[in-house]
Amino acid sequence: MKILAIDTANTSLSVAVISEKKLLAQVTTNVGRNHSVNLMPLVDEMLKQSHLTIDAIDRFVVSQGPGSYTGLRIGVTTAKVLADTLNKELVGVSSLKVLAAALPQDTSELLVPLFDARRDNVFAGIYQYQDGELQTILPDQHIAFTKLCSFLTEKGVKVRFVGADVAHFADQLAQLDLDYQVSEGSFNYPQAYVLGLLGSKQEPVAIPNFVPEYHRLTQAEIQWQASHPEKENDNYVERT
Amino acid sequence: MKILAIDTANTSLSVAVISEKKLLAQVTTNVGRNHSVNLMPLVDEMLKQSHLTIDAIDRFVVSQGPGSYTGLRIGVTTAKVLADTLNKELVGVSSLKVLAAALPQDTSELLVPLFDARRDNVFAGIYQYQDGELQTILPDQHIAFTKLCSFLTEKGVKVRFVGADVAHFADQLAQLDLDYQVSEGSFNYPQAYVLGLLGSKQEPVAIPNFVPEYHRLTQAEIQWQASHPEKENDNYVERT
Repeated sequence: MKILAIDTANTSLSVAVISEKKLLAQVTTNVGRNHSVNLMPLVDEMLKQSHLTIDAIDRFVVSQGPGSYTGLRIGVTTAKVLADTLNKELVGVSSLKVLAAALPQDTSELLVPLFDARRDNVFAGIYQYQDGELQTILPDQHIAFTKLCSFLTEKGVKVRFVGADVAHFADQLAQLDLDYQVSEGSFNYPQAYVLGLLGSKQEPVAIPNFVPEYHRLTQAEIQWQASHPEKENDNYVERT
Repeated sequence: MKILAIDTANTSLSVAVISEKKLLAQVTTNVGRNHSVNLMPLVDEMLKQSHLTIDAIDRFVVSQGPGSYTGLRIGVTTAKVLADTLNKELVGVSSLKVLAAALPQDTSELLVPLFDARRDNVFAGIYQYQDGELQTILPDQHIAFTKLCSFLTEKGVKVRFVGADVAHFADQLAQLDLDYQVSEGSFNYPQAYVLGLLGSKQEPVAIPNFVPEYHRLTQAEIQWQASHPEKENDNYVERT
């Protein structure tokens, strides 16, 4: 199976072409969010480097969130349009899981990928390798950093934080009674190759209903709910 | 410091631009050796993605070997010409160390990156993280795979093999009395970003004398030595 994987969930952008689990080509950039301009030319370039045309791709895999609203919309929309137009498979993968899955498969700690969500909140999940497969211990969510740390401290086991934004919380982490490591270097950047490998193990989704997993309300939803207090549990986007 | 890192030591090709340890852009391809054609266009593309021109680069870092003769010559020559022409720094890094350095810095095992050198030989080194720095336990060399394994078995500690070629030795490994792991997925491919980070810690070299570290004789050297038996320790290439 040939896979094109796209991650535009955050500041960095990564595109990879994979054939039967083998990397053919991958590019990762990290120079500010201009994903709407850069994504398709880099998709073209990676296909060219792989000596493939886009119709040779069997499955499109995309980082589904959490992440920046705009980044997720660009990636998800691009992957949906490509899969739908070319009548190929589509798979969405947690953008946090992509960070965790870059660690070696015999890593035993709790893996905590996170993105800064501002105001002392993070997008985070907790993962752990069990028999070489990455299992979800705490589902991806928008959570106060202190609450996440309380959960981890209670667990009382070794923890490994992953992601460039972990640096924002270094002072708070140092004050905790927690046995932790922070992954550095290349682990800070999501690799579309890792995303594609994860996506190769999932079932394809129904393309029309596929939407980003923001894990928090958009500004439009917050405003709609404020002006419709009688429908506080109603979803502005999903409403029919 | 801004670094351009180039790895063309083996089948894959990787180019990265780094600024103060931060990744700006990286591309990795793995579609057969056509490095002489692909390298400079990918250097240009990564600079463009980084919003830099080549004269903004302070240091060129290159995988110095071991690896394929042709691949090493392309990478080393390109890096030398760029550094010399632009009057910038040049650093060479072991192409095996680049594979080992992709593992997390708190990994405790002996790390054994290797490339298949055919006829049951490998290019391999043994590395280990000590206080977060990668130390050399056995220097890079051309060695019989069985001899490397004897060395590791005698050590009696946990071992982690790294590199796509490890798969060629899976059957032999399974028969050994050795506590080992084999790194998979993205660890199989050298990342120029990791190369550049390693190169940021080394001292620049004198450009004119910089040559690849083949770790075995070239065919020309073997033939020259055969026809000059009286000079068996003389080096055909270095002879003045």
